Amino acid sequence: MFDIKVLSKADTEKLLKMKDVINVVENVYKSKSEDKTCVFPMVFHEFEAGVADMDIKSGWMKESNIFGLKLVSWFGENIKKNLPALVGLIMVLDSTTGVPLGILDGAHITGMRTGAAGALGAKYLARPTSKTLLIVGAGHVSTFQIAATLLLFPKIETVMIYDPINFDTANKKANTIVDILNNDFGINVDGKVKFTAVEDIKEATGKSDIIITVTPSKKPIIMKEWVKPGTHFSCIGADMAGKEEIDPEIYRDARVFGDDITQCVNVGEAEIPVAREIIKKEDIAGEIGDIIAGKTIGRENDEQVTIFDATGIALLDLATAKLALDEAKKLSLGSTVNI
Amino acid sequence: MFDIKVLSKADTEKLLKMKDVINVVENVYKSKSEDKTCVFPMVFHEFEAGVADMDIKSGWMKESNIFGLKLVSWFGENIKKNLPALVGLIMVLDSTTGVPLGILDGAHITGMRTGAAGALGAKYLARPTSKTLLIVGAGHVSTFQIAATLLLFPKIETVMIYDPINFDTANKKANTIVDILNNDFGINVDGKVKFTAVEDIKEATGKSDIIITVTPSKKPIIMKEWVKPGTHFSCIGADMAGKEEIDPEIYRDARVFGDDITQCVNVGEAEIPVAREIIKKEDIAGEIGDIIAGKTIGRENDEQVTIFDATGIALLDLATAKLALDEAKKLSLGSTVNI
Repeated sequence: MFDIKVLSKADTEKLLKMKDVINVVENVYKSKSEDKTCVFPMVFHEFEAGVADMDIKSGWMKESNIFGLKLVSWFGENIKKNLPALVGLIMVLDSTTGVPLGILDGAHITGMRTGAAGALGAKYLARPTSKTLLIVGAGHVSTFQIAATLLLFPKIETVMIYDPINFDTANKKANTIVDILNNDFGINVDGKVKFTAVEDIKEATGKSDIIITVTPSKKPIIMKEWVKPGTHFSCIGADMAGKEEIDPEIYRDARVFGDDITQCVNVGEAEIPVAREIIKKEDIAGEIGDIIAGKTIGRENDEQVTIFDATGIALLDLATAKLALDEAKKLSLGSTVNI
Repeated sequence: MFDIKVLSKADTEKLLKMKDVINVVENVYKSKSEDKTCVFPMVFHEFEAGVADMDIKSGWMKESNIFGLKLVSWFGENIKKNLPALVGLIMVLDSTTGVPLGILDGAHITGMRTGAAGALGAKYLARPTSKTLLIVGAGHVSTFQIAATLLLFPKIETVMIYDPINFDTANKKANTIVDILNNDFGINVDGKVKFTAVEDIKEATGKSDIIITVTPSKKPIIMKEWVKPGTHFSCIGADMAGKEEIDPEIYRDARVFGDDITQCVNVGEAEIPVAREIIKKEDIAGEIGDIIAGKTIGRENDEQVTIFDATGIALLDLATAKLALDEAKKLSLGSTVNI
């Protein structure tokens, strides 16, 4: 009845450029602040605690005339079965007719939009003169954070990579990242940026201007007393109740923004500081889109510690998926199924 | 990365037999009662009140090792654009790995499982000697109700069809249904069942053993004083707050079952009787699966009025979709996309 475009992971890898995804994500945040979007309630189910879960995030981009969902399943033991732990599927529909437009693999899109989100937090909150970036967590997601942040901060000289579980993972990332940035993102930083795997997180924290956390941690990795004035945090990893990456005390004097305040307080990095009454929900300065839309200012001075709590909203996936669908149309990429 | 089977509406029409869908739906209800299923919270959004909405229903069938969702969008003004008002997409995934198994058009599957649901309500609650069936609402859904009920009640002699909006719709359905049952469902009732469009709903109600309501009505169509003792109602139409098809007073002395009690009280036919305190939630005798599982009995005597309130649960769609996927595998039907 309908022809639906289907884009695989390989298709989305070919189609999406980080620069364009950053623009799309920036625009989604702005639209959200301007009430041109709608985030629907999230569905979450844990099949087995700590082993397997799934969530369905959905929403509506009023101006782009699209709505849809992303279903993500996480099965931690898939690695033993030679299957990816994380599987994501995105459905995009036309919000003027309800007709499906596309079905897309969600893995690469999630990586791209999450990288863009972390970097945009830094763009609007970090000191523009930032020279040192610390990435906490050296998994797959960290690559996208590095790519997007280097695009927005061409003055960065040093990227430190820390992995709380395995130093070798950080070391491997530091040794391969220049090639990955070149080959997968078209970003040439060879000789311009120094990448180092670090073992001492306390020391690394004290040297950093921008810290991006991308771990599934359930206890703080970075303590308040290590943080130098003016540091910016983009906290990416906490996306369900109980997850936390940084000392909740860091929230006490920081200027805090979220991607979706309700979600931040329910499942984000802000969950624990608010639950422990270190800050109140009302102490969160706003959503990142409020800065982009010019409703408020980000950082107030160079000494302030700033936090961007990014829990991940389906609107980012939908808008990035739409970008991929539009590009696929231009280039006649992807397959089409009749449904 | 994954090969996913895609089944179009035409594929599902070829693959699904009503007899098999009835078995699947019966088994889902039973599994639900035995706590072998999980219904996730529903997401509902109205783009424009009364004009366009969408919902996402999802759940998990533990024994079949599948989970997934159905997204249904309803855009009332699509008819002007020569598009179907109702569009449904079903995603089925493996609940042991999170890997997607299939993406299916939801239109025919919804019709089939809804027909099976209404008929199963009658199987477990109507008098087995029932001879007269009244279908209220002559739209597309009514065909599936007639097909399934005739399969389960071969002694039915008369089917009356009433349409609250347009008598011609009912008349057309009555005149074409024998051919439709033959061609689309392989059910031959020619000469054995009398189909009549009726204009007087009061009179028709008084003659009926089984009444199935399949309208989007927001006010009662059938009043209590018209109903003869022993009548069974399968109420199918009410699936969102505010919808009702029968006089809430009918609930006062009836034996009532639902497909999912929480959903029935929130958005089903039971919503208004409970809100008006005509019955309490606790007065609902159980879920239909409780009868199938042998936990309780249905009808207690021949004079009792019985009600099955079927709001529609995603588990029915998932299990029916899985049946279609299994059949498609056997017959090498449908298309495959790599995602």
